[in-house]
Amino acid sequence: MADNVVLLDFWPSSYGMRVKIALEEKGITYECRQEDFQAKSSLLLEMNPIHKLIPVLIHNGKPVCESLNVIEYIDEVWNYKPSLLPSDPYKRSQARFWGDYIDKNVYSIRRKVWIGKGKEQEESKKKFIECLKTLEQELGDKPYFGGEEFGYVDVALIPFTSWFYTYEIYGKLNIEEECPKLVTWAKRCMEKESVAKSLPHPHKIYGFAKQYKQRHGLE
Amino acid sequence: MADNVVLLDFWPSSYGMRVKIALEEKGITYECRQEDFQAKSSLLLEMNPIHKLIPVLIHNGKPVCESLNVIEYIDEVWNYKPSLLPSDPYKRSQARFWGDYIDKNVYSIRRKVWIGKGKEQEESKKKFIECLKTLEQELGDKPYFGGEEFGYVDVALIPFTSWFYTYEIYGKLNIEEECPKLVTWAKRCMEKESVAKSLPHPHKIYGFAKQYKQRHGLE
Repeated sequence: MADNVVLLDFWPSSYGMRVKIALEEKGITYECRQEDFQAKSSLLLEMNPIHKLIPVLIHNGKPVCESLNVIEYIDEVWNYKPSLLPSDPYKRSQARFWGDYIDKNVYSIRRKVWIGKGKEQEESKKKFIECLKTLEQELGDKPYFGGEEFGYVDVALIPFTSWFYTYEIYGKLNIEEECPKLVTWAKRCMEKESVAKSLPHPHKIYGFAKQYKQRHGLE
Repeated sequence: MADNVVLLDFWPSSYGMRVKIALEEKGITYECRQEDFQAKSSLLLEMNPIHKLIPVLIHNGKPVCESLNVIEYIDEVWNYKPSLLPSDPYKRSQARFWGDYIDKNVYSIRRKVWIGKGKEQEESKKKFIECLKTLEQELGDKPYFGGEEFGYVDVALIPFTSWFYTYEIYGKLNIEEECPKLVTWAKRCMEKESVAKSLPHPHKIYGFAKQYKQRHGLE
C-alpha cells in the first residue's frame, strides 16, 4: 500500500514549517491542508482532540501531533538518509535538548517581541536576543547545529527565521547585528531546497502579522 | 571500561524520580548526589549551564539534561529489556506525545494547587483534575499507559503521585474520588521495585512542602 500522508497546517506557523521541511528532506509526497483558526475543521478536532492545534501529520489515517514529535516520527518511519537525528545516543540527546530549548524559550518569548508594548516588549526583546545568542554560541563555527550535516536542530530552528523581518520591524531590532553567525547559518539553510520550499517569504509573514494586529486591535 | 554514572538530584523532585526509576528498571549502578538549591554545586553549574537545574545524568563524564530526554538516553544506551519506549514508531510517537502532555500540563499546574490561594488555587485545582481525567481516559482499562508493560509514560507520570497527599491536604482534594482508575494504576506501579525504591514516602514530601511554605511565607 502506498503511504497516504496528509499535513494539517496553517501557513504562517513555524511549527508547520518544521514538518514540511522534514517531509521534503525525506522526499515524501504529501497533501497539505490549510486550517482556518476561526473555524477549525472537524478533521483537526478529531485528529488532535487534546490540543486542537496544527501541525498534525496524518499517516495512513493515524495522527501524530506536536511538531518535534512529528519530526522524530518521520525520521523513524522513513529511516533512510538523510537522517535528521544523529545515530549516536549521546548526540541524539544533545539534539533533543536543543529542540526542547527552542520550544521552551525562543517560541514562548517571540510573540511578545512583535505584539508586546512598552516595558513588556523591551524585556521580551532582551530575553529573545539572549536566547538567540545562546543558540549562536551552541552553533559555534559549525555549518549546522549537528556538525557537517543539516539535521533535527536546524529543522527545529530555521522556520522562525522567516519571522525575523517581522520581529525587526515591530521590535526595532537588527538581528544580524546581534547574531551575525546565526544569520549566516540561516542563509546557508535557505540554500537547501527543502527549506526554501517550506518557508514563506518574510514579507508575506509580515503582511500576515500586520493584518493580525489590525484585526485584534493590537496596533 | 565500566560505566560511571552519576545523578545530580534533589530528592523531592518528580523529575529526579523519573531518572531514578529508569536507572533502576535497567539495573544500572549509579551514584546519587543531592543538590542544595540555595547553593548549587559548581558541578551542576558546569554540567547544566543552560538551565542550572537537576536532574542531570553524568555518564562517563558527559551530561544529559531534562528528565524525559534522560529517560530516552538511558533506554537507547542500555538498549536491553525492559524497554521503556515501544519499538513501533507510531507507538513511540504516542508515548512521546503523552510525556510532553504531562510536562506541559500537569507539572505546570500542580504547583498552584499546593501554593496558590483563593481563586487562583480553585482554578488550578479544576485544571489539575481535568488533566488527570484526560490521562485517566488515555489509560482506559489498560494496566499501564503503553499496554501490558510498564514504560515511558508510566515513568513520566508516576513520580508525581508521591505528591498527591500534599495536593490533597493543601488543595482540599480527594484524587481517588475524582480519578479512581488512575489511583489504581499508581498502586500497581508502586508494586514495582524500581518505583517503590525511587519515590519518597508521601508524608516525607508533605513535610518538605510544609517547611517550604513556612520558609517562603506562603502559609
